Amino acid sequence: MGVDAETTVADVGEFGLIAEVVPAELSERVLIGPGDDSALVRVGDAPVLVATDVLVENRHFRRDWVEAYDVGRRAAAANLADIAAMGGTTTALTVGFAAPGDLPERWAVDLARGIADEAALVGAEVVGGDVTAAEQVVVSVTVVGTCERAVRRDGARPGEVVALRGRIGWAAAGLAVLGRGFRSPRVVVDAYRRPEPPYDAGPQAARAGATAMIDVSDGLLADLGHVAGASGVTIDLDSAAFEIADPLRDVAAATNTDPLQFVLAGGDDHPLAATFAADDVPDGWTVVGRVGERRSAETVSVTVDGAPWEGSGGHQHYR
Amino acid sequence: MGVDAETTVADVGEFGLIAEVVPAELSERVLIGPGDDSALVRVGDAPVLVATDVLVENRHFRRDWVEAYDVGRRAAAANLADIAAMGGTTTALTVGFAAPGDLPERWAVDLARGIADEAALVGAEVVGGDVTAAEQVVVSVTVVGTCERAVRRDGARPGEVVALRGRIGWAAAGLAVLGRGFRSPRVVVDAYRRPEPPYDAGPQAARAGATAMIDVSDGLLADLGHVAGASGVTIDLDSAAFEIADPLRDVAAATNTDPLQFVLAGGDDHPLAATFAADDVPDGWTVVGRVGERRSAETVSVTVDGAPWEGSGGHQHYR
Repeated sequence: MGVDAETTVADVGEFGLIAEVVPAELSERVLIGPGDDSALVRVGDAPVLVATDVLVENRHFRRDWVEAYDVGRRAAAANLADIAAMGGTTTALTVGFAAPGDLPERWAVDLARGIADEAALVGAEVVGGDVTAAEQVVVSVTVVGTCERAVRRDGARPGEVVALRGRIGWAAAGLAVLGRGFRSPRVVVDAYRRPEPPYDAGPQAARAGATAMIDVSDGLLADLGHVAGASGVTIDLDSAAFEIADPLRDVAAATNTDPLQFVLAGGDDHPLAATFAADDVPDGWTVVGRVGERRSAETVSVTVDGAPWEGSGGHQHYR
Repeated sequence: MGVDAETTVADVGEFGLIAEVVPAELSERVLIGPGDDSALVRVGDAPVLVATDVLVENRHFRRDWVEAYDVGRRAAAANLADIAAMGGTTTALTVGFAAPGDLPERWAVDLARGIADEAALVGAEVVGGDVTAAEQVVVSVTVVGTCERAVRRDGARPGEVVALRGRIGWAAAGLAVLGRGFRSPRVVVDAYRRPEPPYDAGPQAARAGATAMIDVSDGLLADLGHVAGASGVTIDLDSAAFEIADPLRDVAAATNTDPLQFVLAGGDDHPLAATFAADDVPDGWTVVGRVGERRSAETVSVTVDGAPWEGSGGHQHYR
């Protein structure tokens, strides 16, 4: 793709821009480059996982919807989940923090506490960062970690199963509630405010032989689309495999939404999705679909019960 | 310091806020925690340096003063210099990039090119990152690297000398020119737009036995103040040791400034300052001062020709 003088970043979108700036060639030291949940780089003699995730006020969170402490938990969770999705564990975090000068100090301190507490769940620590002034709160978290065996997005093979571990659809239901000016059911609002990624499930899946894995941050259809695209396969989900919990059903009914829409397209819960040989699925994971062959570039890569999903699917920044 | 409900981040300033959020205790794995140029963490079996620096539009750069490509060079340089200042070399970078949707794609692509080209100077690569929308351009770069021997800020001892390597005062002179609406002398404007940190000088100083080292990003007085504070010493600079180049003299005359003000308080050049035993100063370094004893907390930590510097000294974000 060429770069036109009048093209904006909104025109090309997040993924278009990333495609444009990713280097064509990387050295041998870069074992996994851009395009997966984390990069894997040989630093000195050690393979090190590294990932960065940016949260922007009024885009990823609203200060009136989410307390600073929970913004911190979410910012850390999004990053820790990226390391888990490689089969790894986070060791350390850095935080780039930009905020207006009139932000209460309390807010910044609570944010830092939230990041530290979430990191502590996996035994990781904040070891550095940078603080500066900006018009808007921006929290850029970087994580470094290790893994015994890195699980990429591109290893899914036809005949395997797709399995999921962790809550899904809950944050989307919470967001739907908050977006309508309500604060209950509390359980889904809390799920939006504080995701609970199954961090241990990443290394567990890697040990069990997962062939591909991803952190579901933008919605299951969108993120499995990345797995399908990278692996050159199709994925068919079985809608009956998803247990729809009562609070999701309640919010769906109250908002005139198909609860599956929350499950298939909702982001922010950070469950892990992985592909396994049918016999390898470890405890705690739920099989929700199957990997099939890709016939052509026009094939819809992720289907539900054999057909394209008619609802909206995930989201893109700038779009 | 307690956190008052009405205190803002501007009230406490960058360093006050950092002091408030830095964890009281870190694990043994964290060999060097927050408060140095980079952190040093044991990731798996390997000691890994990591640092993050955030550049914000209209604070660290203006799009009408600096081309996107040079913003990229500067953003990378600030981070690579943080690793060099530990005596280390950068292996990989991640970039958190937030920008308004109407930003030309060309700008973002040029920024990425600038980051990659600066990184290539030390053999490092961009391996990942995140792109999102925001009201203002924010570039958060994180670097990971290695070192044979980490040089901290806290090892300076009375009787040692302070030495400097790299350009100093040039970027401040360039900023003074740009701030008055001029574009020349070109050589100082270019120095502001594209710093040239002496990356190799970091490992060189470490091998030579440097006892403390810092990247001069906020101004020599301010940054040596960090070394003096961490080491519990005083530093006296010898103003005659600084060769004032003609372009600095010219800009100083034209703007009615003492050229030493650029040298002592100007930031953004990213030279390295280090302390050594007098016989250990390696090639290419200029001795500019001496380390003395600290008598009390009230002692001014960094003096010039034996007296406090009367001009302004460095800067603080939010202040």
